[in-house]
Amino acid sequence: MAVNLPPLPDLYPVPGIRLGTTQAQIRKKDRRDLVLIECVPGSQVAAVFTQNRFCAAPVTVAREHLAGAASRALIINTGFANAGTGVEGLSDARRSCEMLAVELGCTPQEILPFSTGVIGERLPVDRLVAGLPGCIRALAENGWPEAAHGIMTTDTLPKGSSRRVVIDGKSITVTGIAKGAGMICPNMATMLAFVATDAEIPGAVLQQVLHRAANESFNRISVDGDTSTNDACILIATGRSGLAVDAVNGSAYESFYNVVRDVLADLAQAIVRDAEGATKFITIDVEQGASLDDCLEVAYTIAHSPLVKTAFFASDPNWGRILAAIGRARIAQLDVDKVSIYLEDVCIVRNGARATEYTEAQGQAVMGRAEIRLRVMLGGGAASARLWTCDLSHDYVRINAEYRS
Amino acid sequence: MAVNLPPLPDLYPVPGIRLGTTQAQIRKKDRRDLVLIECVPGSQVAAVFTQNRFCAAPVTVAREHLAGAASRALIINTGFANAGTGVEGLSDARRSCEMLAVELGCTPQEILPFSTGVIGERLPVDRLVAGLPGCIRALAENGWPEAAHGIMTTDTLPKGSSRRVVIDGKSITVTGIAKGAGMICPNMATMLAFVATDAEIPGAVLQQVLHRAANESFNRISVDGDTSTNDACILIATGRSGLAVDAVNGSAYESFYNVVRDVLADLAQAIVRDAEGATKFITIDVEQGASLDDCLEVAYTIAHSPLVKTAFFASDPNWGRILAAIGRARIAQLDVDKVSIYLEDVCIVRNGARATEYTEAQGQAVMGRAEIRLRVMLGGGAASARLWTCDLSHDYVRINAEYRS
Repeated sequence: MAVNLPPLPDLYPVPGIRLGTTQAQIRKKDRRDLVLIECVPGSQVAAVFTQNRFCAAPVTVAREHLAGAASRALIINTGFANAGTGVEGLSDARRSCEMLAVELGCTPQEILPFSTGVIGERLPVDRLVAGLPGCIRALAENGWPEAAHGIMTTDTLPKGSSRRVVIDGKSITVTGIAKGAGMICPNMATMLAFVATDAEIPGAVLQQVLHRAANESFNRISVDGDTSTNDACILIATGRSGLAVDAVNGSAYESFYNVVRDVLADLAQAIVRDAEGATKFITIDVEQGASLDDCLEVAYTIAHSPLVKTAFFASDPNWGRILAAIGRARIAQLDVDKVSIYLEDVCIVRNGARATEYTEAQGQAVMGRAEIRLRVMLGGGAASARLWTCDLSHDYVRINAEYRS
Repeated sequence: MAVNLPPLPDLYPVPGIRLGTTQAQIRKKDRRDLVLIECVPGSQVAAVFTQNRFCAAPVTVAREHLAGAASRALIINTGFANAGTGVEGLSDARRSCEMLAVELGCTPQEILPFSTGVIGERLPVDRLVAGLPGCIRALAENGWPEAAHGIMTTDTLPKGSSRRVVIDGKSITVTGIAKGAGMICPNMATMLAFVATDAEIPGAVLQQVLHRAANESFNRISVDGDTSTNDACILIATGRSGLAVDAVNGSAYESFYNVVRDVLADLAQAIVRDAEGATKFITIDVEQGASLDDCLEVAYTIAHSPLVKTAFFASDPNWGRILAAIGRARIAQLDVDKVSIYLEDVCIVRNGARATEYTEAQGQAVMGRAEIRLRVMLGGGAASARLWTCDLSHDYVRINAEYRS
């Protein structure tokens, strides 16, 4: 099903991080559905969350706890999203943290809760609590692959990325896992990604790194335009490597930023490759725009068009649909006579009309591929933006019509 | 396929209007694909067109001609949209008008051209011109049903509406036809609707009536959020009834406006009922908003959500998807604790969380119907908006993956 998504790569342990996964039967039997991530004392934790106004109860609680205390552990359940559950949902999320705090000997404020799954139904806290000892027993530095499985919902494959680089003579590791296959149009974060590094970095700088890297990775993907209520991306720095990244302008900052961004981009692209029903992985580059916002607006309008997405699914170079999507994008100025469109290296539209040398066979050849790059030149400036998306297939409808049943 | 769309009703002739339809083999054999609508001299013609920047060549030419002269005839072809065709497309549209003007003994500026079909390919003007004599021979006051068939593309049924009312003691007729089943998210107009009346009305008042009525009908429907390049809605007034509607504040204005709006709303709803792959006809009412724009933004965000649309297709009361769509709508203020959601009379969400008395069986019973009213109360003001949409089915993907093949 997934489009060129390789098996889970080797995930290097991050000194100071242990992960434990268990089957708690939160919603279904015989699946890993509860994950505990423990960070060594002194770790810095940065987070970005969904911008959906109907954010889930665990998002609200995690925000509160991050504001009030250092974090010692993250507890993640699948099955139920604990969103649209009102005050009872908040109380369920808080009780989960309290019970785990007792087990770990810390305060509830040192626990961050995360949930993903069906919206609008109560979280079965008793089953979650009953699963905690199993998670704790399983805690291990090499627990990343199990955890990558443990956070999956409609994902067909686990998603992870891990990089080791030497910066200023010191080796550091960045390892992350993510889940998500539908309701994907992140806005400042995406559906559950957990990334850790052993670099030493102040909380404010770590937050800046995460914000910037999420903006260039998770905030540049869309499966269906639907922003989840539970999106969260967490970046933990344990400081165990001895590499200090102490300021935004410091010597190590750009090297560190680049490796974090690469891991986040790996995870974001993995989500699109495993998107519900996807058969094509599509990179959209919008160039020559008046502003970044204009480029993104055009790119998202194309990426969200059901007609463009079904044309990709059908391998049909029906570029009129791309043209129509550009034409309705909500940007202030568009000179249609300057717009050009390329499918890979094939120029389809030049100056607003079909390129004279273009043949249907050329377009067909590109559209038949599983990986396609679409380039749109607006001819109105110097800004550009890239995002990643997928097609709309029979299976997307089937999966989302059958979900919950 | 269509959702409760009745057969074409009786379409009353409009004195002063004749219609002729033929098979010109524009793109396919053996289908009615060329329609001529002739208006008596002295008729007033109002029009609203697509706001898509990549508007089709015939839209550009029709706008020019409307600005320069009274209109004597409309020529409509299906098969090719003549959009994305650059200067050659404009020349093709102009030549079609010139050739018809010769046949009718008028100037090319008195002709309005319309096209619908595949984007990006040249209009076969020779075949269109060869079909003109057949259209002219067929001209008749009772040619409305044939014309309703002649403008269809992926429509499964012809669409028409006709009303006769007495205003100020005089009987007037309003009759209209429309086509459209995909690429439907009109913005100031929709995909080809032609409406005529025998009222006598100055051009500026007629344009005001059309603008207002389109805003409350065609601009309140969405199938897939994709705005066509060729949308056009035309309202012709022949003046033959003897009823004069001479000012926006005149005694006959509101009565006349209401009947025009009712005909346009009939046609707009017929388009949604016959939407590509539709199995459900959904009315979305957003109430208690701070402004009309806020209500529309929320309504369209719900209507365009692929996850909401597949849930309707599956008859699944997965209201979390509706909640998530409301939560990501681009409005300035939303107090989620005041939001309530009803499916018909069943309260699903009250004050931002699941209604305590709600049972899945109640939601299921409503979702199983072919006609569903969704009400969203924002609790933030006194504005409201209604729009009509449909579900997203396997057949939508199949139809749009197979189109052109």
